Amino acid sequence: MTATTTLKSPSCAAVSSAAVGEFGRIDRFFKPLAAGFPGARGLADDAAVFAVPPGCELVVTTDAMVAGVHFLPDDPPGDIAHKLLAVNLSDLAAKGAAPLAYSLALCLPRGAPDDWVAAFAAGLGEAQARFGIHLSGGDSVSTAGPAVLSVTAFGTVPAGGAPSRNAGSDEAGAAGALICLTGTIGDGALGLACVLGKLDLPAGPARDYLIGRLRRPTPRLTEGRALRGLVSAMMDVSDGLLGDLAHMARASGCGAVVEAARLPLSDAARAVLAAHPERLTDVLTGGDDYELLAAVRPDRLAAAQAAAHVTVIGRLEVGLPGAVRAVDAAGREMAFDRLGWTHI
Amino acid sequence: MTATTTLKSPSCAAVSSAAVGEFGRIDRFFKPLAAGFPGARGLADDAAVFAVPPGCELVVTTDAMVAGVHFLPDDPPGDIAHKLLAVNLSDLAAKGAAPLAYSLALCLPRGAPDDWVAAFAAGLGEAQARFGIHLSGGDSVSTAGPAVLSVTAFGTVPAGGAPSRNAGSDEAGAAGALICLTGTIGDGALGLACVLGKLDLPAGPARDYLIGRLRRPTPRLTEGRALRGLVSAMMDVSDGLLGDLAHMARASGCGAVVEAARLPLSDAARAVLAAHPERLTDVLTGGDDYELLAAVRPDRLAAAQAAAHVTVIGRLEVGLPGAVRAVDAAGREMAFDRLGWTHI
Repeated sequence: MTATTTLKSPSCAAVSSAAVGEFGRIDRFFKPLAAGFPGARGLADDAAVFAVPPGCELVVTTDAMVAGVHFLPDDPPGDIAHKLLAVNLSDLAAKGAAPLAYSLALCLPRGAPDDWVAAFAAGLGEAQARFGIHLSGGDSVSTAGPAVLSVTAFGTVPAGGAPSRNAGSDEAGAAGALICLTGTIGDGALGLACVLGKLDLPAGPARDYLIGRLRRPTPRLTEGRALRGLVSAMMDVSDGLLGDLAHMARASGCGAVVEAARLPLSDAARAVLAAHPERLTDVLTGGDDYELLAAVRPDRLAAAQAAAHVTVIGRLEVGLPGAVRAVDAAGREMAFDRLGWTHI
Repeated sequence: MTATTTLKSPSCAAVSSAAVGEFGRIDRFFKPLAAGFPGARGLADDAAVFAVPPGCELVVTTDAMVAGVHFLPDDPPGDIAHKLLAVNLSDLAAKGAAPLAYSLALCLPRGAPDDWVAAFAAGLGEAQARFGIHLSGGDSVSTAGPAVLSVTAFGTVPAGGAPSRNAGSDEAGAAGALICLTGTIGDGALGLACVLGKLDLPAGPARDYLIGRLRRPTPRLTEGRALRGLVSAMMDVSDGLLGDLAHMARASGCGAVVEAARLPLSDAARAVLAAHPERLTDVLTGGDDYELLAAVRPDRLAAAQAAAHVTVIGRLEVGLPGAVRAVDAAGREMAFDRLGWTHI
């Protein structure tokens, strides 16, 4: 690749098939995704313009996914679209926000076929309808490398109402708060192990369920809003339970303990662990859960459990900030050499 | 590259040098960029949370830049950072918005050296200080391909005050509105021609000026806010004057004419055109100007010119929507086979 052929240059550019291609693609596949959101201005202006309801603050998150890193290039485009939106909405859920709109930076390999784009846009449309959000704008560029998909999602929350990761700002202090979790944990990591051929699970509903949880996670938007006023701290579990809990504990200036026997597991995960007990490491440290992790004061637990289905899995405790222990059913401490993973 | 080595997998991940690398890099280089913006929550939460001032709307734009497409991989990282922020702020300027914050999706080639990241972050810091904006959050990922840098910028504008590209929503109608331009036009395109070796300009202040305009464009934030209430339509010129004017004319349901002799030119561009008259094509159709293009009713021209330094270069006229003509000093129509370029 040389500069002369790759830099955008007036002398090699034209409003021809190329330009028609980009604008045509936006018209055809992406304008319909913005149709329900007047602030998008039909994707035909320099910027989106919209109001935040009075008394509300804006909640903003950005998550990017790269082909070969966060998904496989031949994953179904609709699954990729779902996950791209879901991982962003999970961050909004963690702050108890209601989804409002999102901006998309779409960077596809040169020559990406229209049918891939069509399937990707259809997946976005399905996810939009399910989660109640619209496209507000974005950018479409090409790369000589793998696809890079980035979303910035906007939500709204009553002013001052978004919980942080610091349970210690509560007047009662952080230590002693109960650690609660929505849904079930570990499904995404076990699904990934299936996809990578590292977990030999026969074809069938259990395998499909785990891979479905990996590829089409459910952002806990309803739960996040219901829990918002009842928690001392809240975040989503995206990079692994123990690692993410360590972030919360560090922000709260204390340690934390997880009781492994109390972890909420799906039937599929329970069956895997029965056959492969060592997979508990994946459940505790694997990523891709997108459940909510909340610190709840004991005197608010009943209200939190009435507001959303959550499971108590441990508690914050006096300790070195960020030190997380896991104990088994007998109270014995368990050793892990990993606390999660990170995107590098 | 195989899935097993590239997909993020619990079984090959660790909170080790890699994790420390990512979090350490964010702490070291990017947290300082968010220090002046409390809503960023120190880049330590799932999302940014901030208010939009009462009576204001949010203006949101996303622009991405790809190495080898929008900049050369060996361009100075500080220049790349400046341009990334400036092209986004130019869209805010076009809507008359005041900058508020921005989110960054940073996708760098694996193994990108810390000193590149340090210089890039320093460039962002300089641009932030100059333009009055702060980092609110983002994501940091890696790719096997070229760098992809995406910014979503937020600004604020009094509710209902952001101009669109449609001058026809004015009760007086679009045709007859004067086309005004801030600054000078064509410098970026001529600078690119220098960089690409397609324009043989000797080393010296003129060459430096043109390349500087290419690499460090100035978003017309002050002018945008000053013109906001006086224009019938406004947009920025990023993809070429004639092409962008065609967008405005199409949105306004009319045609437009540009008088080439009235184009505001820098001394450097004027000297290039004196020696190479054919370069007028670059000036009219090349991209990277980041000036503001406004449609102004004749009875508001004096007020607009008092508010900001703008040059009248033509007018909207009755015609096929989007049809743009250029005429020379004698009123003769000029022919161009290109109206700009697009990112494909």
